[in-house]
Amino acid sequence: MKKIVVGIMGPGNASPLEVQTARELGRCIASQGWILLTGGCNSGVMTAANQGAKEAGGLTLGILPDRDDRHLCPHVDIAIVTDMGSARNNINVLSSDVVVACGMGPGTASEIALALKAGKFVILLHLSRAGQEFFAQLAPEKAIAVDTPAAAVDRIREILANGNPK
Amino acid sequence: MKKIVVGIMGPGNASPLEVQTARELGRCIASQGWILLTGGCNSGVMTAANQGAKEAGGLTLGILPDRDDRHLCPHVDIAIVTDMGSARNNINVLSSDVVVACGMGPGTASEIALALKAGKFVILLHLSRAGQEFFAQLAPEKAIAVDTPAAAVDRIREILANGNPK
Amino acid sequence: MKKIVVGIMGPGNASPLEVQTARELGRCIASQGWILLTGGCNSGVMTAANQGAKEAGGLTLGILPDRDDRHLCPHVDIAIVTDMGSARNNINVLSSDVVVACGMGPGTASEIALALKAGKFVILLHLSRAGQEFFAQLAPEKAIAVDTPAAAVDRIREILANGNPK
Amino acid sequence: MKKIVVGIMGPGNASPLEVQTARELGRCIASQGWILLTGGCNSGVMTAANQGAKEAGGLTLGILPDRDDRHLCPHVDIAIVTDMGSARNNINVLSSDVVVACGMGPGTASEIALALKAGKFVILLHLSRAGQEFFAQLAPEKAIAVDTPAAAVDRIREILANGNPK
Repeated sequence: MKKIVVGIMGPGNASPLEVQTARELGRCIASQGWILLTGGCNSGVMTAANQGAKEAGGLTLGILPDRDDRHLCPHVDIAIVTDMGSARNNINVLSSDVVVACGMGPGTASEIALALKAGKFVILLHLSRAGQEFFAQLAPEKAIAVDTPAAAVDRIREILANGNPK
Repeated sequence: MKKIVVGIMGPGNASPLEVQTARELGRCIASQGWILLTGGCNSGVMTAANQGAKEAGGLTLGILPDRDDRHLCPHVDIAIVTDMGSARNNINVLSSDVVVACGMGPGTASEIALALKAGKFVILLHLSRAGQEFFAQLAPEKAIAVDTPAAAVDRIREILANGNPK
Repeated sequence: MKKIVVGIMGPGNASPLEVQTARELGRCIASQGWILLTGGCNSGVMTAANQGAKEAGGLTLGILPDRDDRHLCPHVDIAIVTDMGSARNNINVLSSDVVVACGMGPGTASEIALALKAGKFVILLHLSRAGQEFFAQLAPEKAIAVDTPAAAVDRIREILANGNPK
Repeated sequence: MKKIVVGIMGPGNASPLEVQTARELGRCIASQGWILLTGGCNSGVMTAANQGAKEAGGLTLGILPDRDDRHLCPHVDIAIVTDMGSARNNINVLSSDVVVACGMGPGTASEIALALKAGKFVILLHLSRAGQEFFAQLAPEKAIAVDTPAAAVDRIREILANGNPK
């Protein structure tokens, strides 16, 4: 039976607060028994999320943009090597039952937009007011801003249970 | 010698004003001797831009998401069939010397973000205030809001001449 | 630490003998502690390999060509949803430490060729004499025909140990 | 109205005879008013085919595997930048109304196989006896070996006229 996969998207160049949140998110996701999916590279939000998930005994999946695993985060268990650059962002979101964005950058913005295009729910953390407003305009029922990893996990549980947040 | 390609991105579900702007943009781009690139489907901004370009005697290129050309806009001269869904959005922007976004939706947002990720300039038309602010936060020097097709063409000319807008 | 992934490629429309071999291959691969990667669909060699791997308590990874998991083999634990059609064949081989082909069809042939293009070793089972000769012409040191799942596993072990078969 | 696109696939590392054939094929295709599609790189069969097509006044399309156009053949008019490595081979064949393979290598073999998978006709030149036999086993009605560029063009015309060769 297919396991549940939760994707954490976020910038390689992340602030200390975003890194801390990503690590906590990784821990929470693994604690729920969900597989963690990230872009797989060894930087910023990706590294922190994978580190957190492994601390909680989880399984980690990295979808790499490169043609080999030279930039692979050491906390990733299973590497998917795409050699597709940023086009792999679409695979990240299509393969995630729910997408969480932690922090912001052009790559992360593309993942949120691609997830919304595919009809996925996206949980948003550390997003500017303009960003929140913009994504709410794009998909008011699918883009969900929260303040903490615990709130993110609550929302993911609702989405997985109902296919729809309260 | 490689020809100049300008991409127009925009929603399939577009307002009458966005359609009118896209058609005028297509005419302007073709009048400059530039090739028009779109997502190739027969709806909204894509259809209008291709129609405008053909009215001005231009050459039109459509990068299709499907596995065949059943949704191809009839004003497209050359169809690239990707069978990659929204991952083809990255090809749209990488293949465009300059990207123009006309109107907004999740797919268009992903194209703007992917273009900024790749270091491309993006000219923005019919974008909400929140959207303008959001993309300015992402890439203040690359995301350029304008009001008219004529202003868009002026900016494209500057970018092609200098690699950098004034 | 990244786990070892072995890919089994083969036709959805497979003969009973190919199905039997694929199931035995899946069992052998899982018994070694390697993760099994397939194209993820519920047919032929893919189903049989995943079934065998689960019988031996393994972990199974399916790289789907579709935009959702509607054709997913029920013996797949983790689904990667690519929405890329046959272009996902390149991901199949790039993500596999060693590729095994069991049986033949146009999709399988493309996977062997893409693996050889990427410099990967490919173990070949149930391949016609013309096929063996053709791939030996393409890459004499990388295309390795064997007769049994046990021989395939021996060769995979050699490749993983030495980066080069005897 | 969509123009007819004929793809020439072949190795970057080609023999003088393959290069000569590719150049003549490019000339023949352009003389028919068909657009030439290649993998776009500046080597072997790709360069020769594009050179031939430009000599005959044709329009040339290059589908690049890289993230920019640094390896672009100078005889290519329109560059599609995919950043997808060998996965772009699937786009090459899906975008071609008919595929011609001139010479052989792992990349070319993958393109023939992907074309046959997609139900396309493939005209084969300079293919070994084992290769001819192998592809005839894969798709006897779709893989068509010929000896000269002129014979290739005759077959392409038949395919375009009937959707089926004699």
